Amino acid sequence: MTRAIMNGCNGKMGQCITGICAQDEDIEIVAGIDTYDGIKNDYPVFASLKECTVDADVIIDFSNAKAVDALLAYGVEKQIPIVLCTTGLSEQQLADVEKAYEKVAILKSANMSLGINTLMELLKKAAQVFAPAGFDMEIVEKHHNQKLDAPSGTALALADSMNEALDEAYTYTYDRSQKRKKRDKYEIGLSSVRGGNIVGEHEVIFAGQDEVIEFKHTAYSKAVFAKGAVEAAKFLKGKSAGHYDMADVIAAK
Amino acid sequence: MTRAIMNGCNGKMGQCITGICAQDEDIEIVAGIDTYDGIKNDYPVFASLKECTVDADVIIDFSNAKAVDALLAYGVEKQIPIVLCTTGLSEQQLADVEKAYEKVAILKSANMSLGINTLMELLKKAAQVFAPAGFDMEIVEKHHNQKLDAPSGTALALADSMNEALDEAYTYTYDRSQKRKKRDKYEIGLSSVRGGNIVGEHEVIFAGQDEVIEFKHTAYSKAVFAKGAVEAAKFLKGKSAGHYDMADVIAAK
Amino acid sequence: MTRAIMNGCNGKMGQCITGICAQDEDIEIVAGIDTYDGIKNDYPVFASLKECTVDADVIIDFSNAKAVDALLAYGVEKQIPIVLCTTGLSEQQLADVEKAYEKVAILKSANMSLGINTLMELLKKAAQVFAPAGFDMEIVEKHHNQKLDAPSGTALALADSMNEALDEAYTYTYDRSQKRKKRDKYEIGLSSVRGGNIVGEHEVIFAGQDEVIEFKHTAYSKAVFAKGAVEAAKFLKGKSAGHYDMADVIAAK
Amino acid sequence: MTRAIMNGCNGKMGQCITGICAQDEDIEIVAGIDTYDGIKNDYPVFASLKECTVDADVIIDFSNAKAVDALLAYGVEKQIPIVLCTTGLSEQQLADVEKAYEKVAILKSANMSLGINTLMELLKKAAQVFAPAGFDMEIVEKHHNQKLDAPSGTALALADSMNEALDEAYTYTYDRSQKRKKRDKYEIGLSSVRGGNIVGEHEVIFAGQDEVIEFKHTAYSKAVFAKGAVEAAKFLKGKSAGHYDMADVIAAK
Repeated sequence: MTRAIMNGCNGKMGQCITGICAQDEDIEIVAGIDTYDGIKNDYPVFASLKECTVDADVIIDFSNAKAVDALLAYGVEKQIPIVLCTTGLSEQQLADVEKAYEKVAILKSANMSLGINTLMELLKKAAQVFAPAGFDMEIVEKHHNQKLDAPSGTALALADSMNEALDEAYTYTYDRSQKRKKRDKYEIGLSSVRGGNIVGEHEVIFAGQDEVIEFKHTAYSKAVFAKGAVEAAKFLKGKSAGHYDMADVIAAK
Repeated sequence: MTRAIMNGCNGKMGQCITGICAQDEDIEIVAGIDTYDGIKNDYPVFASLKECTVDADVIIDFSNAKAVDALLAYGVEKQIPIVLCTTGLSEQQLADVEKAYEKVAILKSANMSLGINTLMELLKKAAQVFAPAGFDMEIVEKHHNQKLDAPSGTALALADSMNEALDEAYTYTYDRSQKRKKRDKYEIGLSSVRGGNIVGEHEVIFAGQDEVIEFKHTAYSKAVFAKGAVEAAKFLKGKSAGHYDMADVIAAK
Repeated sequence: MTRAIMNGCNGKMGQCITGICAQDEDIEIVAGIDTYDGIKNDYPVFASLKECTVDADVIIDFSNAKAVDALLAYGVEKQIPIVLCTTGLSEQQLADVEKAYEKVAILKSANMSLGINTLMELLKKAAQVFAPAGFDMEIVEKHHNQKLDAPSGTALALADSMNEALDEAYTYTYDRSQKRKKRDKYEIGLSSVRGGNIVGEHEVIFAGQDEVIEFKHTAYSKAVFAKGAVEAAKFLKGKSAGHYDMADVIAAK
Repeated sequence: MTRAIMNGCNGKMGQCITGICAQDEDIEIVAGIDTYDGIKNDYPVFASLKECTVDADVIIDFSNAKAVDALLAYGVEKQIPIVLCTTGLSEQQLADVEKAYEKVAILKSANMSLGINTLMELLKKAAQVFAPAGFDMEIVEKHHNQKLDAPSGTALALADSMNEALDEAYTYTYDRSQKRKKRDKYEIGLSSVRGGNIVGEHEVIFAGQDEVIEFKHTAYSKAVFAKGAVEAAKFLKGKSAGHYDMADVIAAK
């Protein structure tokens, strides 16, 4: 069983992870860290990592950029692997993370969902088979109407993933309405649908001669990221220093 | 039973319609018209309508723009309703068609598929319910990689159809990658996917609070247009002069 | 603006409706009824309808079967229309509801979702066009792995809805693995997928010659039923005695 | 460039392969074999393999069971690899094929589509990741209304493929309407939709906690099998004796 410290335990993601761990026999949250103490948990909560006296196998972090310096220091000193999910780190912090890789095991990934990361791995192989066979690649993503950016970061990561797996460099096409021409062989089309409160849907299409293969991921709530973090934590227990990502978690299965 | 003359009987669409009628007890092709005589049909074929001596209830036309003048003249003179599927008519011809509406029944529609036209009618009602309830409307269409235009004419027709059914005027958005802003309430997004030899797929999405409704039409071959023309012919038999479209065929069911 | 009493305001659905009304300018919850008083609301909460002194246009009910007798009595006496969403009523209570229709406006529907009910109306028309044209009708529904019954009540309601709109009686087919024969023309296939925590997905398929039309409804949370109840409440304000359902709400749009 | 003999060149599949090879620079049909000589091809056609004097790297076979004995003898004698697509072989012939594996390279696969075979490989890995993580697996397949068997052989092959990749043995469920119970963890549901002239659609669903991953293959015509055979032929050129299948073709990419 994996004993985990939940850094940022009283935030939305921290509570979501708490709920998932409560129903998983292979992992237990043995301590939480949060400056906010208005929530009652089944584990002791400390205001900071410094104050935490509980022994653990791994730290799951969904806190905030400010808390990351103390997190890295603690992980390195105590030699406890870290699942680092906080985003928005400064350049200096990113450099610090790079250095920390040499001293402790850290898992850091663009997207924590098990589904998306598994898909990303499978799409590399799919692209290597289908693209040389003349299939065209397209991505359609759907998100809620409050999202500012398009296409989604995950859609771009999926496209990059396929692109890197191929010999030729593919360009990305976001709009076909302004030109009157046939599709180029070496392009990947990315379309963005926005509406309602759709959490996130990504569809990758390989269209060939008389056959189409589609890979689709639908997220129904942000809990998928929590779930991914828990799987990552179980994987990271006992690992030696280095940079790990979700692909490693999947490869180990 | 409807007795039909097939104008352009030896073209791809003419032959497709011939095959469909052969299996439909409610319609029979009693004569074909084509300058090309290299195909053996179960009905007599004449080089031009003028030469046709067979009596009929309706003319199905999938010929070419040049043949349309003779077609209109024949239909008006003989008082035989026309299912007019030839596209690319000149301005003069379009004006002639308008005049002919006063003298004979003519069915002319943007898209001959029963499915798309039925969908168009249902989408008007759907838009009137969902749009005021705060649902966002989006269209994704998929076509083969040789198609020059985007979005497809049918996608635009679907959007127009919903737009006309609503009180507010909605604008169309083709690209979200160049701006960083939330979706506008009064926009309809249109995305175009291109790949392989996809015949045609249209998906209309109504995305609301925690629920999404999708209407999807998939064409597997151009036979759907042939099928629509046959239904139109059966409908048009015995109709008085006027302009009819596929919506009338559907409404009569 | 519609002034509503929320019967069962502190239950899961009551709170969900409270949240929706807070963001809707056309409706306001002016009082709540609940025996549990552990939640702070922006409106006064009474332990029973009897004690409620606030004037209202409509009562939304998501309480429990025991509370329905008092609800009907109150609605009839005060002449306040009722959106009745509580299920599991006894035979006696169902009979009482029937009688109450004569004295006050009551809206009671098999499914409160705006999307499903709109779809049900559109499917009737779709079936009337597609079935006589030789299209086959199939339904695929997907729900979470804890659901006991299959197919879902909503899938059956959708099938019944299409069946009633057609001249011929269609039979329902749930399993094709035990026989080796072609599909019958007058059957509707119903398939049930179970997995994960899928809230509810219903797909109705019309498959014809070279074209397929699909209608799909996806529920992302139970909030869709709350949303439907709110729309129903706004509709029911000022209505005379009688039995209304969600189809009336949609028809009025 | 691969020089191929097309065995059964004037059949539907032979002609389809002829068309595909004509547009592929990496393969050329140098001779055809067929007893029917009513079609004009760009390559010489012989009535039997015996009479064929053209040198080749590979034989693509879409003939009939009767022609297979001569095919095996010819391939072994001339040491030309065989892509064996003819089905309905007798027990004796299957045994002969087994023996021939020792003497010449033969590719024989349950399904020749590149898409389905690639999917089958990817699904093994997907199952190994998702099943232990608690995802439920379901398959929905759609075919035309003339198909006798259900579920499709390909759907069963996909299920078997996932099953073999997992430690636990999963049972297959075809009907949920006759029991009132929760889904079992170790079951794979298979649903069969029948309608219109759908060529073939297979959807594999992994449904987890708040996320669903779908893999979908759509065949638009039987040309996909032809395409697979051509890829197989290019792969098989120069291979040593043995039994190969489409998975080898894909793995080599």
